[in-house]
Amino acid sequence: MRELIETMLESERIYDGRLIGLRRDKVKLPNGRTSTREVVVHPGAVAIVPLLSDGRVILVRQYRYAVGKILMEIPAGTLHPNETAEDCALRELREEIGYTAGQLEHLASIYLAPGYSTELIHVFLATNLEPASGDMDEDEFVEPVAIPLEDAISQIGEGKIQDAKTVAALLLVWQKRKADSEP
Amino acid sequence: MRELIETMLESERIYDGRLIGLRRDKVKLPNGRTSTREVVVHPGAVAIVPLLSDGRVILVRQYRYAVGKILMEIPAGTLHPNETAEDCALRELREEIGYTAGQLEHLASIYLAPGYSTELIHVFLATNLEPASGDMDEDEFVEPVAIPLEDAISQIGEGKIQDAKTVAALLLVWQKRKADSEP
Repeated sequence: MRELIETMLESERIYDGRLIGLRRDKVKLPNGRTSTREVVVHPGAVAIVPLLSDGRVILVRQYRYAVGKILMEIPAGTLHPNETAEDCALRELREEIGYTAGQLEHLASIYLAPGYSTELIHVFLATNLEPASGDMDEDEFVEPVAIPLEDAISQIGEGKIQDAKTVAALLLVWQKRKADSEP
Repeated sequence: MRELIETMLESERIYDGRLIGLRRDKVKLPNGRTSTREVVVHPGAVAIVPLLSDGRVILVRQYRYAVGKILMEIPAGTLHPNETAEDCALRELREEIGYTAGQLEHLASIYLAPGYSTELIHVFLATNLEPASGDMDEDEFVEPVAIPLEDAISQIGEGKIQDAKTVAALLLVWQKRKADSEP
């Protein structure tokens, strides 16, 4: 087995921002040479597939400034300090789609862009959904849309759903349901 | 339908690096208020699911400094200037696993972290694989591993495969094969 691990020699803080930070580190490569690694520091996040009892999932249309497009995504958000992933999931469901979930099942925890970002996102399936009391967050510029899971899977193939965590999470739910329904 | 679009008011270049850049923009929100958007500028990338005729996929074990872990991923890499996505896919297959592909099928193009990164990654299925002439890139610290696609899908559920593009791409291939095999 090859030696793969890189070790930090120096670390320089480039930026501390609102959502993200940026470090530039000097590292020692497995072959003894040195190189530079740019690291976006992110607090971590949660994403939720809200599945209604009729088989529809609730997605949100959301403008993503970084890519200059409205994307169809599952509800998601950044972890607040000292917040558990489950609490964050319930908060985001309430704020973005106005629902609460009777059941949350952890599907996976995945690194979105491990080549340069620390971000780990915890993905949940939310079921037993009920409209939440209280208002949705008016500062969330998102528009909920409920569509059958099968249609959402088709939309991935058609290029209409392009957000990586959404593609991964919807397919995880689809695969799980297929596997559970097979003998 | 709600107004969702944010428009740039000012843009400040924070960092220009080796792989990524960083901008901090002042934007006008749909409600007329202003906010800040931090944008990681990335040249885009390609990822490939190399599928052998015996049903195994070739993954690579790779140390990811940003997350401090060895991850199991599909071969992938950043687009070079003026390189097509297909040429990049063939280059990465050769450099990372020592194969060339007789057929490349575009599966999807997905945004990895559209909340803060411009990165768009083009995902391909590579088949009719043949060992490539010439050496693999000795500066790629990656270790190829061939495993059955079904086992890779199981490893996602077990938390052994945690890279978002890999999760999305393997499930895309799995879903496509299921859909194609059904009447």
